[in-house]
Amino acid sequence: MSDCVNSIGVDVGGTKIAAGVVTDGGQVLARERVATGSKAGYESVIRQIAELARNVAQQAGLPLGSVRAVGLGMAGQIEGGTGIVHHAVNLFAERDIPLGPMLSEALGLPVTVDNDVRASTLGEYLFGLPGRPASFLNVFAGTGVGSGFVDRGRLLRGAANSACEIGHHSIDWQGLACGCGSRGCLELYAGGLGVARQAREAMASDPGTLLWLLCERDPGRVDGRMVATAAGRGDVTAAGVIERAGQALGAGLANAANLLNPEVLMLGGGLMKLGESFRKAALETFQSRALATVRRSVRLEASRLSDDAGIVGAASLWRVGPDGTIA
Amino acid sequence: MSDCVNSIGVDVGGTKIAAGVVTDGGQVLARERVATGSKAGYESVIRQIAELARNVAQQAGLPLGSVRAVGLGMAGQIEGGTGIVHHAVNLFAERDIPLGPMLSEALGLPVTVDNDVRASTLGEYLFGLPGRPASFLNVFAGTGVGSGFVDRGRLLRGAANSACEIGHHSIDWQGLACGCGSRGCLELYAGGLGVARQAREAMASDPGTLLWLLCERDPGRVDGRMVATAAGRGDVTAAGVIERAGQALGAGLANAANLLNPEVLMLGGGLMKLGESFRKAALETFQSRALATVRRSVRLEASRLSDDAGIVGAASLWRVGPDGTIA
Repeated sequence: MSDCVNSIGVDVGGTKIAAGVVTDGGQVLARERVATGSKAGYESVIRQIAELARNVAQQAGLPLGSVRAVGLGMAGQIEGGTGIVHHAVNLFAERDIPLGPMLSEALGLPVTVDNDVRASTLGEYLFGLPGRPASFLNVFAGTGVGSGFVDRGRLLRGAANSACEIGHHSIDWQGLACGCGSRGCLELYAGGLGVARQAREAMASDPGTLLWLLCERDPGRVDGRMVATAAGRGDVTAAGVIERAGQALGAGLANAANLLNPEVLMLGGGLMKLGESFRKAALETFQSRALATVRRSVRLEASRLSDDAGIVGAASLWRVGPDGTIA
Repeated sequence: MSDCVNSIGVDVGGTKIAAGVVTDGGQVLARERVATGSKAGYESVIRQIAELARNVAQQAGLPLGSVRAVGLGMAGQIEGGTGIVHHAVNLFAERDIPLGPMLSEALGLPVTVDNDVRASTLGEYLFGLPGRPASFLNVFAGTGVGSGFVDRGRLLRGAANSACEIGHHSIDWQGLACGCGSRGCLELYAGGLGVARQAREAMASDPGTLLWLLCERDPGRVDGRMVATAAGRGDVTAAGVIERAGQALGAGLANAANLLNPEVLMLGGGLMKLGESFRKAALETFQSRALATVRRSVRLEASRLSDDAGIVGAASLWRVGPDGTIA
C-alpha cells in the first residue's frame, strides 16, 4: 500500500508483456510479466493486459479504482491521442485496433498508448537522469534500434507520432535492402537481427568459429547471446561481428546527434548485453564521427532504469500533453 | 518610408553579404549586396555590415534609430545568446569573435546572430508558408547542405546551438573521408562541392563529355552551373552526375524525415538551379526511402522566399527566445 498516487505501466512486446504499479515518484511497487499470447488475436492480448493490470494492483494492495491511469508502450505506429494502434507488426495481424478505448472500457480507467521507446525515454528522462537536461536523446538497441527525444521538456512526436525512427535511418544508402523499402538501415547492422545476420555471414567463411558448435550447426539458431558467448570464450570471428555492429551503431549515434545536438545521449537496450566491446566500439565510433561541437556538448549515459524503463515510462504517459509537453 | 516596425536582416556569406530592411510582415523595403571582404580581417567585415545596415535604412527612408533590431545569419558555430562567433571557417581565420556585441556598439541597436540556415528556416516558416505547420524541416542545398527545424513553434537549437547539421550526417558510413572527421557525409555527394567532385570523377572516364570543353580542359574550374549547362545541352555524363547527386540528397531527406517526422519538408538552395531532374531525383528517392507513415504525413514544398529567405529570416531573429520559442 502506498500513500502517493499510482499509475500502471505496461510494456507490450512481441514475446512478453510486463506490467507494474508505479508511484508518481517513479518507484515500482509491484510487477508481473507474461508471455504475449498474440497468436490468439488482439482481443486475447487486451484481456491479458487487463488481467495483468488487475494482478499488479492487487499485489500492491490497491483497489483498481484508486489508480490514476494506465499507460501502454508498444512497438508500432500508434495514434497518440486516441490510443488506436494503426500497425504493430510484431503483435497483431489486424490494423487500426482501438486498443486504448477497449482497455479503458475493460478497466474503467483512462488509458494512454504510445511507442515503446518513446515511453522508455520518458521514464529515463523523469526518473533515470539527475535533473532534466535541456535535450535528451535515448537510443535503444534491441532486436531493432529505436530512439526517443525530449527537447526542452517536450517529447518529439512528429506529424504522425512517428518521430525518432533511428533504426530506419540509412548509414549505407546503396547497401542492403531493408523490409521498410529503404536500403542500409541502421538496424540491419546494429540491431539484434543485424548481429545475427552478420554472424551467419561470418560463419560462412570461417568453418572453425565456435558459433558453429554453439548453434549445433544450424545457423538459423544464431542470436546475439550466442555471439556474445562465443566472443567471451575468445572466438575472434564472433568478436569481430560484435565490434562491427558496435561501430555501425556509433555511426548512427553520430548521425542522430549531428541532427539533434542533444545535451544527454543515453544508450540502452538488450544489445548492450553483448558486452563492453560493443559499447566501446559504439562510443569510439561516435566520438570520431560526431561534429566537434556536438561531441563536446554531449554527456553520454548508460540506461539507468534498465528493464524497468518500459513500465515506468508507460506509467508516466498521462503526464504527456498532445503536443508532447511533459508535466 | 513605412508605418510599421522594421528590422534589418543580414545574410553573411563567404562570397557576398546581403542586407535588407524588412517589415514585421516580412516585406523587404530595401536591399543591398556587396562582396565579402573577409581577407581584410573580421573588423573590416563588421565595418562592411554596419555600412550596409546604414545604407539600407537610408534607402528605405528610415532613421537608423527607428529600426527595432538587426539580425545576422552566417554559416558557422555561433553562440545564440551572446552573438559570439566561435568558428566560421568560410569567413574568419580567428575564433570566438564577439561579432554581435561589436556590431551592436557600432550601430547602437540590438543585434542577434545565428546560423544562416536556421535564420532562413525562420523566414520561410513565418512568411513563406501559409499558416504555421506543427513541424517544419527546411533543407538548403548550396555549396554545402544545411537544415533547420521548427517543432510546435520552437526552432531546434540543440545543446550548443548546433542542431540540424544534416550536411554532416553520413549516408555512407564507410565512404569518402570528410573534412569534419567523419565519412560519407551527405554534402560530399549532394552539395555543390560534391557535385563538382563527382563531375571531375566522371570526366576522368569520359574524354568526350562536354564538361571538358566548358571548363576549358581545367577540371578544377568545374562547378554546379557548368554541370547544369552541360546536362541542359544533352550531355549524358553531366546528367548522370546531377541525377546521382539528387538521389543522394533524397536519401538524406528520408533519413532526416524518419527522425523528425515533419509536417512540411521544404527544399531550397542554389543547387535547386541544377534543374528539374535534380529535384525529381531527390523527391523520388525520398518517396521510395522514407517510412510509409512519414511519407504519407509530409507535405513537400519548394522554397517560397528564395534568395530573400536569408535576410527576411535574419531580420526576424529578434522573435526567437533563448529556448527557440518563436514569438
